Amino acid sequence: MDLREKVEPLPEEFDPKEISDPAGSAPNGVFEGGDGKNREIVLGRNVHKMCFAINEPEADDEITGEREAYMASVLARYRKSLVERTKHHLGYPYNLDFDYGALSQLQHFSINNLGDPFIESNYGVHSRQFEVGVLDWFARLWELGRNEYWGYITNCGTEGNLHGLLVGREVFPDGILYASRESHYSIFKAARMYRMECIKVDTLVSGEIDCKDFRNKLVQNKGKPAIVNVNIGTTVKGAVDDLDMVIQTLEESGFRDRFYIHCDGALFGLMMPFVKRAPKVSFKKPIGSVSVSGHKFVGCPMPCGVQITRLEHIKVLASNVEYLASRDATIMGSRNGHAPIFLWYTLNRKGYRGFQKEVQKCLRNAHYLKDRLKAAGVGAMLNELSSTVVFERPKDEDFVRRWQLACEGNIAHVVVMPNVTIEKLDAFLNELTQKRSSWYEGGKIPSPCIAADIGDENCLCSLHQK
Amino acid sequence: MDLREKVEPLPEEFDPKEISDPAGSAPNGVFEGGDGKNREIVLGRNVHKMCFAINEPEADDEITGEREAYMASVLARYRKSLVERTKHHLGYPYNLDFDYGALSQLQHFSINNLGDPFIESNYGVHSRQFEVGVLDWFARLWELGRNEYWGYITNCGTEGNLHGLLVGREVFPDGILYASRESHYSIFKAARMYRMECIKVDTLVSGEIDCKDFRNKLVQNKGKPAIVNVNIGTTVKGAVDDLDMVIQTLEESGFRDRFYIHCDGALFGLMMPFVKRAPKVSFKKPIGSVSVSGHKFVGCPMPCGVQITRLEHIKVLASNVEYLASRDATIMGSRNGHAPIFLWYTLNRKGYRGFQKEVQKCLRNAHYLKDRLKAAGVGAMLNELSSTVVFERPKDEDFVRRWQLACEGNIAHVVVMPNVTIEKLDAFLNELTQKRSSWYEGGKIPSPCIAADIGDENCLCSLHQK
Repeated sequence: MDLREKVEPLPEEFDPKEISDPAGSAPNGVFEGGDGKNREIVLGRNVHKMCFAINEPEADDEITGEREAYMASVLARYRKSLVERTKHHLGYPYNLDFDYGALSQLQHFSINNLGDPFIESNYGVHSRQFEVGVLDWFARLWELGRNEYWGYITNCGTEGNLHGLLVGREVFPDGILYASRESHYSIFKAARMYRMECIKVDTLVSGEIDCKDFRNKLVQNKGKPAIVNVNIGTTVKGAVDDLDMVIQTLEESGFRDRFYIHCDGALFGLMMPFVKRAPKVSFKKPIGSVSVSGHKFVGCPMPCGVQITRLEHIKVLASNVEYLASRDATIMGSRNGHAPIFLWYTLNRKGYRGFQKEVQKCLRNAHYLKDRLKAAGVGAMLNELSSTVVFERPKDEDFVRRWQLACEGNIAHVVVMPNVTIEKLDAFLNELTQKRSSWYEGGKIPSPCIAADIGDENCLCSLHQK
Repeated sequence: MDLREKVEPLPEEFDPKEISDPAGSAPNGVFEGGDGKNREIVLGRNVHKMCFAINEPEADDEITGEREAYMASVLARYRKSLVERTKHHLGYPYNLDFDYGALSQLQHFSINNLGDPFIESNYGVHSRQFEVGVLDWFARLWELGRNEYWGYITNCGTEGNLHGLLVGREVFPDGILYASRESHYSIFKAARMYRMECIKVDTLVSGEIDCKDFRNKLVQNKGKPAIVNVNIGTTVKGAVDDLDMVIQTLEESGFRDRFYIHCDGALFGLMMPFVKRAPKVSFKKPIGSVSVSGHKFVGCPMPCGVQITRLEHIKVLASNVEYLASRDATIMGSRNGHAPIFLWYTLNRKGYRGFQKEVQKCLRNAHYLKDRLKAAGVGAMLNELSSTVVFERPKDEDFVRRWQLACEGNIAHVVVMPNVTIEKLDAFLNELTQKRSSWYEGGKIPSPCIAADIGDENCLCSLHQK
């Protein structure tokens, strides 16, 4: 076997243009095609953009040291590009501001929390003692007793959703899944994976679930229990579904004991508890599980998440253990043991009050961004409990990519995380207004109407401008 | 909310006994109950062993520096325990010998390969260029053309199995899953998650799938396509299913075009290609997907894996994209971007020849261990293509835990990885023979018969000893 294929030359700087699709099509946006229209989602491609091939070592490499030097230069340039990319990032809900220098001493260990966090494994290089500490903190945050919860630290928000919905399905095997159409795609992926019947519920302009439509659809399917996904912050608009109204709708539609609610709190699950006027996510209400991402508001070098559910539900899984053939109620078997230590470290350093301060700062900065966008004539929306500012999609894909904005159709968003400062927002706003003036030729060309996406009152096109 | 619960005092040293179940039951083995008998698997527990609670910071913490000092001391002691635990580890197939010092400069970045590795995301802090390089290397290893494969770097072997079987089910929605009863538990977990009919096939004493039983079960279910899990190294005995005989059995039973084979190569998938006499795992044969773990033979600080499948199969997933509502054919959405860089680094440093040397060393050392065990009167088995040495389960749980042996029923195993040296094996063997002499009172008490587990010819109990 000849593994000595030539490595592609390394560009001086990682210009995003250089790593774009060689076929010439625009790079994809986050949620769909990059041209902002309803471009078809293209799966099953295998497009080799710039890639660093593996180069079989030469026999004399160790003597010449050339290989080491080559690898060091690849890494140094990659690091430089990460610094630049981190600096210009606004679109994804990741807190990029963290310092885990104190934990670099642990990178040398293969830390693996195999299986259930509460069942000791014989593998000794684990971090269960940190993981359980973190889980306790979250269970307390969501008001579930120390002896009444079960949970684990996941690889990402998607794994939390996959777990929550699986538990729901095991509790109600013939249940129908209800989720608003602005739910994260992992919800619909789960429905397909698990072969669950799934009904999409309409949303309001804000992005929240439309409980009137929910009620209609429940009433049409009274025969089967309901498994409901409630969004604590939708992906695009940062909308928070009204948990209390969802529960009320279920009860009034005759589903009193026949429902399971999973709260997808990927982003705001960790911010909401610190906002005074926010409706509470709490296990004192009849919910079954809550998941949240760890790499978003907290910040972590790699994706991770926290999943908390009721111990009694896990016992339902356990009753089928012979078929499951496992002492493991997690989705994954081997689990990253570093993630719990990162979370433990930040929770301990910042604590409840630290998060509260950061949430307040984020909400303040989000309002600043929205106000300045509108003052500059850019249609924009900010949901009350959210730090996600939705606005007119910038016309130029280079600009979108430079600021790594997440886009869907005619809108884009910025998620204001703790690392997004006023200075960063100002730089972005100045660049945007300058560019915009040339895109729309100082107002000669009308800017697009986005009222359908963000409501008449937020749109600033020539029609809706007052 | 009062988050100021008292942190449990930190023990001087992380003695495994101190973190054992306070209820007094023996800690669990890997595959089932720790007492070695068929103890019921207990799920749905929430046992708080030693844990590091999160402590809400005091207002004056920053001034006194007490918090920083406390956390530093927790971490320093934890690190010390990891060194000790890493030193005495033998039971799990993890190569604990790696040095990623050159990559610690990247820990400061939130690297996330969101979604499909071949579809660019707007999020700029990713490592797709490394990931695709690694995938190319594996596709070449398993003989699938650069433009014919699709794959991604997973969080662990389980995710690879979940993906492979999902692809199989999408290709044959009414297919029946066949897997030997010694398959990894994630295979049966997947069957349950995906609501697939699943048939367990018997195994030979070696742990390999019994193709006679397989044939019988196929013939009884001719009406439905077959989705087959083939083990390239079983979890307990390191047995390699005979891929060629599995294919022949399928074809002879009339399943010519109606089967999908997933190869679970969690451990040996990366070792087999370097063993001359091993049957080849190759996409030139009619297989659908292969998965392998990255943290096992390669070695990585956190679990990860590689999943390779045929591009044409992913197009089957893609055809249902409206329902999937995603441009993402992975199981997870957010994906750890550090893992591909770890793999890229090791593949580049060691290359094909480096792995070959390490595999040879592992097999040599495994033979050494088996021979010395038998010479000491301990029944032991080593499959031909394996570095997993299976032997009589040590009588004392403290000893099992000290060496972190993986146990099932009456047998235990050591997986000889590149970091397991002759010196380490000698230390283990000396301790074992010494202890054993006291457990069995120098031969006065007979040692248990394990012929049912490893075969008459490998057992050294008084009945089978010649």
